Order: sequence, then C-alpha cells, then structure tokens
Amino acid sequence: MAQNSSKTSVGIGLIGSGFMGRCHANAFTAVAGLFDLPMTPVKQVLADHSQEAANAGARALGFAQATADWEALIADKAVDIVAITAPNALHEPMALAAIAAGKTVYCEKPLSTTAASALTMTKAAEEAGVVTCVGFNFLRNPMLRLAREIIQAGEIGEITGFRGRHAENYMSDPDTPHSFRTDPEGGGALADIGSHIISMARFLIGPIVEVSADCQTIFADRPVRAGSTQRRPVVVDDVTHALVRFDSGVLGSLEANWAATGRTMDLSFEVTGTRGAVAFSQERMNELHLHTGQGGRAGYRRIEAGPDHEPYGRFCPAAGHHLGFNDLKIIEVADLLMAHATGGACSPDFREAWRVQQTVEAMQASSQERRWLSVDKAS
Amino acid sequence: MAQNSSKTSVGIGLIGSGFMGRCHANAFTAVAGLFDLPMTPVKQVLADHSQEAANAGARALGFAQATADWEALIADKAVDIVAITAPNALHEPMALAAIAAGKTVYCEKPLSTTAASALTMTKAAEEAGVVTCVGFNFLRNPMLRLAREIIQAGEIGEITGFRGRHAENYMSDPDTPHSFRTDPEGGGALADIGSHIISMARFLIGPIVEVSADCQTIFADRPVRAGSTQRRPVVVDDVTHALVRFDSGVLGSLEANWAATGRTMDLSFEVTGTRGAVAFSQERMNELHLHTGQGGRAGYRRIEAGPDHEPYGRFCPAAGHHLGFNDLKIIEVADLLMAHATGGACSPDFREAWRVQQTVEAMQASSQERRWLSVDKAS
Amino acid sequence: MAQNSSKTSVGIGLIGSGFMGRCHANAFTAVAGLFDLPMTPVKQVLADHSQEAANAGARALGFAQATADWEALIADKAVDIVAITAPNALHEPMALAAIAAGKTVYCEKPLSTTAASALTMTKAAEEAGVVTCVGFNFLRNPMLRLAREIIQAGEIGEITGFRGRHAENYMSDPDTPHSFRTDPEGGGALADIGSHIISMARFLIGPIVEVSADCQTIFADRPVRAGSTQRRPVVVDDVTHALVRFDSGVLGSLEANWAATGRTMDLSFEVTGTRGAVAFSQERMNELHLHTGQGGRAGYRRIEAGPDHEPYGRFCPAAGHHLGFNDLKIIEVADLLMAHATGGACSPDFREAWRVQQTVEAMQASSQERRWLSVDKAS
Amino acid sequence: MAQNSSKTSVGIGLIGSGFMGRCHANAFTAVAGLFDLPMTPVKQVLADHSQEAANAGARALGFAQATADWEALIADKAVDIVAITAPNALHEPMALAAIAAGKTVYCEKPLSTTAASALTMTKAAEEAGVVTCVGFNFLRNPMLRLAREIIQAGEIGEITGFRGRHAENYMSDPDTPHSFRTDPEGGGALADIGSHIISMARFLIGPIVEVSADCQTIFADRPVRAGSTQRRPVVVDDVTHALVRFDSGVLGSLEANWAATGRTMDLSFEVTGTRGAVAFSQERMNELHLHTGQGGRAGYRRIEAGPDHEPYGRFCPAAGHHLGFNDLKIIEVADLLMAHATGGACSPDFREAWRVQQTVEAMQASSQERRWLSVDKAS
Repeated sequence: MAQNSSKTSVGIGLIGSGFMGRCHANAFTAVAGLFDLPMTPVKQVLADHSQEAANAGARALGFAQATADWEALIADKAVDIVAITAPNALHEPMALAAIAAGKTVYCEKPLSTTAASALTMTKAAEEAGVVTCVGFNFLRNPMLRLAREIIQAGEIGEITGFRGRHAENYMSDPDTPHSFRTDPEGGGALADIGSHIISMARFLIGPIVEVSADCQTIFADRPVRAGSTQRRPVVVDDVTHALVRFDSGVLGSLEANWAATGRTMDLSFEVTGTRGAVAFSQERMNELHLHTGQGGRAGYRRIEAGPDHEPYGRFCPAAGHHLGFNDLKIIEVADLLMAHATGGACSPDFREAWRVQQTVEAMQASSQERRWLSVDKAS
Repeated sequence: MAQNSSKTSVGIGLIGSGFMGRCHANAFTAVAGLFDLPMTPVKQVLADHSQEAANAGARALGFAQATADWEALIADKAVDIVAITAPNALHEPMALAAIAAGKTVYCEKPLSTTAASALTMTKAAEEAGVVTCVGFNFLRNPMLRLAREIIQAGEIGEITGFRGRHAENYMSDPDTPHSFRTDPEGGGALADIGSHIISMARFLIGPIVEVSADCQTIFADRPVRAGSTQRRPVVVDDVTHALVRFDSGVLGSLEANWAATGRTMDLSFEVTGTRGAVAFSQERMNELHLHTGQGGRAGYRRIEAGPDHEPYGRFCPAAGHHLGFNDLKIIEVADLLMAHATGGACSPDFREAWRVQQTVEAMQASSQERRWLSVDKAS
Repeated sequence: MAQNSSKTSVGIGLIGSGFMGRCHANAFTAVAGLFDLPMTPVKQVLADHSQEAANAGARALGFAQATADWEALIADKAVDIVAITAPNALHEPMALAAIAAGKTVYCEKPLSTTAASALTMTKAAEEAGVVTCVGFNFLRNPMLRLAREIIQAGEIGEITGFRGRHAENYMSDPDTPHSFRTDPEGGGALADIGSHIISMARFLIGPIVEVSADCQTIFADRPVRAGSTQRRPVVVDDVTHALVRFDSGVLGSLEANWAATGRTMDLSFEVTGTRGAVAFSQERMNELHLHTGQGGRAGYRRIEAGPDHEPYGRFCPAAGHHLGFNDLKIIEVADLLMAHATGGACSPDFREAWRVQQTVEAMQASSQERRWLSVDKAS
Repeated sequence: MAQNSSKTSVGIGLIGSGFMGRCHANAFTAVAGLFDLPMTPVKQVLADHSQEAANAGARALGFAQATADWEALIADKAVDIVAITAPNALHEPMALAAIAAGKTVYCEKPLSTTAASALTMTKAAEEAGVVTCVGFNFLRNPMLRLAREIIQAGEIGEITGFRGRHAENYMSDPDTPHSFRTDPEGGGALADIGSHIISMARFLIGPIVEVSADCQTIFADRPVRAGSTQRRPVVVDDVTHALVRFDSGVLGSLEANWAATGRTMDLSFEVTGTRGAVAFSQERMNELHLHTGQGGRAGYRRIEAGPDHEPYGRFCPAAGHHLGFNDLKIIEVADLLMAHATGGACSPDFREAWRVQQTVEAMQASSQERRWLSVDKAS
C-alpha cells in the first residue's frame, strides 16, 4: 500500500462553537472532499468563552487544540485563517487583531454592530491587504449565481423592478421572550434578516443609493425571559418595509419580517425586466423561476439546480438531487480558501458587508425621520 | 305539453357594451339558471355612445331595445336596475339620475373619478334609499368568503399582519402607449388595480385608517398613441407601495403594480395571525392556502373550492371543477338581485366604494407629502 | 329606441334536468352572449321523467315548454337539437329516435351502456347524416387544444410516452353506498371517469390499438343504500390501471381511480417527447406545463390560459382571469351550434365516443383474460 | 492550550472512488461533526482498480493508504468497516470476503446482480453475525420517516392504495449510447431506479407479495458507444409499469422510467387512506404533503422539513433551511456507525436489499410470462 501524502495545508482557527461555529467547522471538514483545492484546511485551534466550552467544541468538531483565549488563537502560528462566529459585539476587536497579525479573516454576518465599526474593520483590512470574507451564505447558491447571470446577460431585458423579502416565523409568537435579537444595538428584524435580502438585492442589481423605510413593532412587549410573566417593551422592529433606489435607477421594495407565521425561510425575490422576470424563494432553494416567452408560450419556467449551474456538480453529478443549507457554507469556504491561496478577492468581503450595514442604518434613520435618505457613498 | 309561466321579472338597463358591459349582460343572462331567485332578470334596454353601437350591443347581448340616450334608458319604466359600465367620468351623472328615478344602481368600479364625487353619489343613494352595488367582483369568490370566515372565527388567532398585492403585466412594456388608464384623473396603477387589493384588505381586515404610500413612475414617457414615435411624459404611477394601519391596529402593506412582467393576475394576500395564516392569489383563484398546525405537522394547506364553500355548489356539485372569472360576476349579480328583491343591503355598495376611493386618494396625498396621513373618517 | 331583431333561432330540446341537464341548459343560455354565432339557441322544450319534474326544470332553466314524453319533445317541430342527459340506458332509444327525426343529437357521455349499442347509434347517425356531439367537455379546455398543438407541431420532438390519470375521491369512503355508478352495467371507475382520460389520450396522441389492464376492487362491499347497515358486494372496479399502445407505436399508461382520497379532479397527463414534455391536471385547469430548454435553462414552464389560447378571448380579454368548468360546456355548445349551422363535423362525435367505449370494454376484457388485447378496429 | 484527545476511532476501508465512492467518503468525513457518535470514523484505506486510481482517490478523499488490491484492504487490521462502491458484479466476492473477515459491510445498491447472489450474501452475513447496510439513501430523508410515522399511527385511516414512481430523464435521448446500465445483467430502468421506489414502497407499506409487471423498451436500439453511428439493440426496459399487492392486502402501482423527459428525480409516491393521504416527490425532498381535514377545510398540507423531524436538527436548528442529497448519505452513515458500535441492526440491511432484488426479478418474470406472480417468501 502507498501512504497518502497530503497537499499543503492551511490552518484554521475558529472562534465560537455555537450553531454557526459548528456550521463553519463542518464546512472546513467537508470542503476538501468536494472541491479541488490547492491546499487542505486543517482544523488547528478552537476558541470559546471558557476552556471547558472550547474543549467540548474542539472534541465535537475535530480541532487539534482548544483555548479560552482568542488572542492566543490569533497569535498561533499554525493558524492562517481566523473564522469569527462570536457574539456581534466582539467581531471588531477580534477582526482587528487578526488583521494586525496578517491573517485571512472570515467573519459571520453582521460584520459588526454599527456601520461605523464595520468601516473601521474594512479600512484596516484593506490597508493590511488581508483577504476577508463575510458569511452571507445564501448568495453561494448556484441558483443565485444563475439569476445574476440571467440578469446581467440581458435575458429578461432592461431591469424595471426588484421586490425582495426575508420573512420567517421565529418571533411570530408574542410570548417568545426577549433575547440578544431584540437588543437595541444591532437587533431587530431588519438588522437580523433584512440584511440578507439587502445583500441579495445588491448582489443581483447593484448598489442601493436611496431608501425610504418604515420599521414597525408589532408586539409592544415580550416576556423578559422564557417562562417569566414580567414583560418588557420591545424597541426594535418586527417588520420593516423599505423602498429602495438602486444606483442604476431601478426602484424596488424590500421587506424584513420575523413575525411571519407560516413562513420558515421566505428569503425571496422577483426581478422584473422589460422582457421577462426571475423569481426565487429560499423555501425552494433548488429552483429558479424564469419568465420568458411570447405568443401563447409565455410563462414562468421552473429551473431545477443541476450540474449546469456551478458549482452544483461538485456535490452531485445529476440534477434533481438537491443542495442543502450546509452545502452553501461549503461553497463559501471553498471560495474563501481559493482567495486565501491566490490572494485574490473574496466576495462578499468586509467592504461589501459594511455597505449592507450602512444600508440597514440608512433605513432605520429613514424610518425615524420619515423621509427618503441617501445611503452615504463616502468610504 | 305545459307552457312555462315565468316568475316575476325585473328589467335591466345596461349602459355600455365594452368588456365590462358584456360581462354584466352575460351575468344577467346566466344567473337565473344557477341561482334560485325570486325574480327573473329581463334584458330590456342597452344604451351606448351611438345608436349604431347600441344596436350592435343589443343584438349581441340579447337586449330588447337599444338607445344612444342613457337618460331615456333610465326613464324607461321597464328598467328596474341600471347597470353602469360607461367611462368613469360619466358614472356620477348617470348614477345620480338613476337614483333620482328610484332605480337600483349597479356601477362598475371605480365608482367615480374622485372620492368627493363618490361621496356625493353615496349620500344621494342613501337619502333616496335605493339599493346600490359596485363591481369589485373578486370579492365574490367563495375562497375570499372562506378566508374572511377563517379570520373572523379566530382560526388563525389574533391577526398580526396583512400583506397584499395586485400585480399585472399589461403596462410592463415601455412602448405600450398612453390610454385613459394613464390620464391624470383617476388613472395610474393604484387607482386602476390598487383599488382591488384595497377593497380586499377592507373586506378581510376592516377599515384602513392611516396610510403611508409611495407612488412611483417607472417609465418616464410612453408613445402618445399606438404606432407613434412621439412620446409624452407619464404622470401617473406604475407602481405604488403603501403601508397601512387598520382600525383594529393591524399593520399591513400593499402594492399595486401594472408593470409586473410575468404576472397576469397576482391579486394576492397573506394574512398572518398568532396561530396561523391564510394566503391567496387570483392566479389560482380556486385555492385558499391555510397555515395551521404544530409539532411536525404545521404547514400550508391547499384548500380547493367546492360545495362546502357557498355559493360554489350553485355552479357545480363537486369540488375540483373550478369557478372562472365570469362566474364571480354571476355571483355579484345574484347578490344584487337578492338585495333588489328584498330591499336589503348589497355589499360592496356605494359607501364602501367611496371608502376605497378615499383610501386611494389618501395614498396619493401621502406620497406627495411624504408622510403618514389618516384616511378621513368624516362622511 | 330601436327594437332588437334577433338572429335566426335554433330550437333546443333538453331531456333531463339533473346536474348535467342544468349544465347543458345554462350553456345554451350563455353561449349567445359570448360567441359570435350565426343563430341564437332558443330553449324550447324540456322533458323529464314526470310532468312535475319537467315543469320545475323548465321554470328553473327557462324552457318554453315542459313534457314527460321525450318522444313528443323529439317530434316537436320547434326542436332542432336534441340534448340527452337522461340515464345512460335510455341514450340509445332517444338518440335513435332523434336521428330518425333528422335532428342534431347532443348526448352526454357515456354514449351508451355498451360499445355495441354505441356503434349502432354511430351507424344510424352516419347513415342519416345528422350532426352528433358527445359531452367530453374537458377536451374543450383551451389548454388541451394548446397541448395538442404543441405535440402536433413537434415542439417536444417525437412523442415517446403518455401517462394519464383520472383520480377523484368520491368513492374513497368504504361506507359510501351503492348507486347507479356501481351497477355492473356500465359502472365502475373505468367506465365512469376512466373514459375521460381515454378520450384525452386519443385527443392528444391518437387511436389506442392495444391494451393490457387490471381492474381492481378495493372495497369488497358497500351499504346497499345510504344509512343501511346491510352491505352488498361490489362487482365493479374502484381502480383500473392500464397499459396502452397507440396506433403511432407510442406506449402509455392510464389510471382510473375513484377512491383517491385527497384528489378532487386529478384528470391529468404527462406527454413525453424526445425534446420536451407537456403536463396538465384539471385541478389547475388554467395552466399547461411545457418542458423545454437546454444548457442550464431547461425546465417546466407554467403557461397560464389567456387570449392567445382560443377561444379563451371569448370569455375574457386578459390572461389570468380563469375559465371555469361551466365555461368548458359553453365552448362545447358553441362548437355544436357551429356544426349544426354549417353541417360540418363536431368532435368528439358518436363515432369517437364509440371508440372510447370500445377501449373501455377492451380494458375490462383484458383484465379478465389477463393479457394484452387489441382494440378492434372494425367499424 | 489544551490538546484535543479524540474518541475511539473506527477504521473505514472504501472500495471504489467514483461518484458513490466519493459520496461515501464525504459522508464519513462529515458525520462526526454533525452526529454525537460513540466513535470517530477514520478513513484508513481506499482501494480502486489500479494503484494510480487508488492514489488519486486517497489523496482527493483523505484516506491514509491506497491500494489496487481490495483483498488487502479487507485484510487490513485498521479497517473495521468495508464500504463497497465497486461495479455490481464484484459486490458478492467483496462482501463475502469482508464477512469472512468479520467486518461490518456497507454496500451500494443493488446488493448484487441477481437475487440469488443477494441471498447468498445475506445468509453469509447472518450466519457470521456481522452488521450490514445497503445504500438506499433516499429512505434516510426525515420526510420519509415522517410519512411512515403518519401511516403507522393511523393518521390517514386504513391504507387503501399506494402509487409510486421513479422517473428520470437520463436515458430519454434515443442517441444516448449503451453503457453498463443497458447490460442485460442487472440493467434496465426497473433494476436501476425502480429498485428505489420498491424499497420505498416496502419501507412505507410493508412486504410486496404479488406483482404483475410490464417491462417496455421504448428505444429499440442505441449507439454502441458515444459518437458511434453503429447501433445495437436495447434488450432492457426503458419503462416498467407494475401492479403490486402488499402483504397487508393493499393494492398499488409502481412505475420505473429513465426516459422521462422533464423529470430529474421524480421519485414520488401517493399513499391513500380512508381518512387522508400523503404525497411526496424527491424533486422537492424537503416537503411532505399530508391530506386531512373535512367540512370546507380539507386539503393537502405542505409540511416543510424542520427540527421536529429527526434527525434534521443535527444539520440545522431551524426549519426551512433544507437538507440536500449528500446529507441523506451522512444520515445513512450515522445509522451504520451506530449499528456498528452497538451491534444492533441497520436497516435496510442485506436481507432487505435481497427482498428488493427478488421483487425486481419477480416483476421481470411477470412481464415475460404475462401474468401475476407471487414474490417467493422462502429465504
């Protein structure tokens, strides 16, 4: 028998082992068997809020070392890529430290708690010349890339409208208690999930330059914690409706809604052109609906994901087999590793994530000022 | 053989023989064979803009007499019900004359070109005590009645949100020329089709008391007429987005869009409650989607129209056979005839149609003033 | 005012005023306002099993005269077209009498209780040269005509397969009692609804020349009548599966199932070709699904019925408004009246209905003999 | 920092590195991060038809060693589980050798090329007492488990019918050349994909005891190889229709079709009961459709996969995020590892796979003999 000598390796340091930390770790585990990469990721260090949590996480997720000291993780020479899935308020110091150490930084969304903080991080990364990547994983769906290709190739004519929505049901019960999600800083439906449909709108149509939004609180108060009869006012939005104007002049609308009973993941859009339209919902993430045709043959065509839609073929050689949510994260990690290996750009990077956050804040301000606001273009 | 002696008859006078006139006439023709009515409608007089047009219409639609003089039609003793499908600007004088003559008045939507005019008509009708009915035919769908029944019975809990839309594609081509639809007075997507989703919202949830709207023109100009290379600016909206607050406190959003490539009749809504949701689109008008359930069994249930949903059984004794658009008009006419026979109320009547128009105008004003406006409650 | 002088009239005699009789009458009432016909149908005589029933039917459906004597109806000079919706066993004597009187004959399906009887009727009609029409109304759907046009134009390449089904739920409860539907003569799911999918298969693909079928009884017995605790064995099929070979060599499968809980009207097919496919279900009768495309754009396109699909435009000038079941009957009556006026053919006529019945009987025989049988081509 | 000491490990030997080999390897890689297993799989040895192929496979898929000698792999003490994804004809010798060595055996479907061979393998495994597992991965879908739970709990009443299908399009072009799939031994649509719907029918309803099938060849010949103009007759089926009788008395139908243009993965079923129905298609694998309800509320409910449906929660904590095809393989591997660790049963095992193959062969024989055949119950 021959011993298998592995390729160059790249060391991964992961901060946080909750749902998204686990998701990152599993993507780094799976990616090598699916993509033909120039280097193999090696799970070197996992950091968490306590040594105990870190030990448990490292064992469950297969990291070589565990630590309660994220600064030690960043300093570790075995770590080439720092993946941040810690609470949002910690993203900035962690990312700045990783940037200062010259590491590639892979950060979960939102990039930070404010656009100003996100801009600081962006500038630091760009000055240091490090590769960055932010986890807007839904954009990795081959159906999204197909939608953009169709739009950019003019297959539906000139774009005349965008209608987007991210609706879920996880806060639809007025007795669901407060959590970090309902904290004034960075919380609310718009910041939490609206950011996904904003990033999708930018991905498909381009920069958003003006917004007019209305942030609404449906449930005036919620229990202070699970099981409590004491209630505290809710100060963040349950639903936000926004009108947007893209740099291209296209007008659109967006909705973020976390009280949408009956919707599990209606991250959806309809892009209208002069000769056709494309429609999508994450609830059927392996389908893109393309409207074209004339003279008795017009209609929405249901395109199923398949090997024609890269990188679907990495996962399965035949259409109809379906990618899942975790596969999107694997694609994201593959893109990140490729950018790390080549020094090329990874999109969405910090700059793009800052733009999304800036758009969120412009919408919040617009809602308070009750008028259209331009999303500042200054960097 | 026995001679068939017919029931008491009620004379119909129809003004206009275009698409909607034809639709009215055919509904009056068909209704007797489907509903068990106390009286049989008889198509007595058809009026149109010229004697020639009236003759042709009467022949095609089976009216006994034809006239170019609508006042003669109203004055005719054989006419008990005056059905108005003339251009919008003529609705007021025609309706007022019919009211003055004590006739039942059945008017196409919009009731008039302004809310003020609609209110004048409403007051006149109420003072005279005549029965009125306005053609918001989509409300006659048994699936709509079912949705309202579900909402009002509390089957989906307390209502927490309304999301409505009326999107079609008939103005999605920038080279579609101007027409009466793009006239400043009464034109635009909001007035033309937005009124349908407003009436539906009111039907399901109740009065709308506050609005914040944005009326947008997508195509700056259009050909002055078919085939012309000369173009004239468009001053009405192609798309309107509106946020609304219902009298019950429920928040909602509405969209009217006549430039929605790919949508033929997306007159649709999603009503969210604390325990479920109902969703509908006119594109599949024989289905209502009801979300209920828990613990691994939750989901949207596709309810197909059937004899359990009155008055479906009048048309067909088994589910799955489908009602069509023209059947909705027949139900409307049956409701009208019943109200005429009993002197009872017919809904939507002039007052309701005025409320819809008032809401449209409040949205238009809100868009210009860029702020929330209350829909005046004064009558 | 001008008096409306109507067009040449054609006298209708209707036998039977149950669901289908009512459906016929209403179609004759409605057709003139929708189609541009050379003659106006006039509802002259209605016959039913008793004078009382006939009187009631004539009054409800607007016939001038009522009779308990169908032979008098046929003999009446005012009657030009005899519409037969009486029990199946009476179709033959009624049709033969109408043919002998030189009348146009419009008969509900099944044409008769046996293929032999249907053939006798066919030969009589052809020798007399009268126009005949049989009520396979589902074929009148513009979406069906579109499907056939797509198939015949080669838009989906060479046809390689047909898969059809008519599944409903009306006998899915084992406690639903016996009725005429479960009578040995002419009863069973195959004869009752399987005939619809057979006629559709023939309409789309052509003659069926060989069959191999299996007729299954799911519920061994049923109550002898509603409310009875006494049960009697069921001798007809609840479900039939059949394989068929078309004259063109295409292979296909058919299912008839009246015990299909959850299905209201799954009269559906999928026609496969070398370059595409078309799929349809009556549960969404205003849609045809057309599969075409390549290279990342392949998919099923949902085509919505609209004015491009004749004669949809007769009912409504815009797509998305939906035809209903009763509209199909109106189209059937329009086709019949046109054939009556011109002396041309109306399809499906008696000959076609006989072929359908012959195919049903070949399937029943095949099931008993447990082998493939050719459907006799002799006439 | 603390060093992570891993759990007990279990050595994996994989034979074959084609599509399914890759799929197995990736599942073994991913499973530890998702499931809480008592042992960690370690990819020890990969065998392929040549040392070169084995080296490449081991490098790409992360195996420690590579060999062209599968017997050496089986003999290797580091290997505890032998995963077989080699050509079907080799399954028997490989599995028998692994069984003789006391290893757990994980074999791709079909278990072997004949039922007789599958039975030999089954008996050997049972005598040796080793754990076996066969890769009918579609059964691992939480929606399938939900369907079975619903059926077995009586939620849809007594079962009255089963209708299944596996239709794909990969042989729908008559110019697709011959391959191992069209070999007489073990080839054809029935054996290739029909086995999936047979296994699903057995999973949901139980043993199939009688069959009546018709195996049809649509395309008489195909190119001998890609690009060749020479054609050779096709001797296997393109489409098979079968009627089946389950041990419980339920009647059903099955279709296997690899020439179904427009279908990518219509592995679907509809199970009918006296009080409801369940329907599923792999084309929307994250949905189960459950029909229940009465009195105007009956309908098919679309249940979306979520944490209520085990083991979905292992992959994602919220509904609507979707599992993909590769996730099914991970669940299969988790089940296998659990059985290996506990010595418990893993289903489907060799015996179940033999039953499936026996059913396939009974159908093939039935088609040739043109009669119903019992599926032999002898073991």
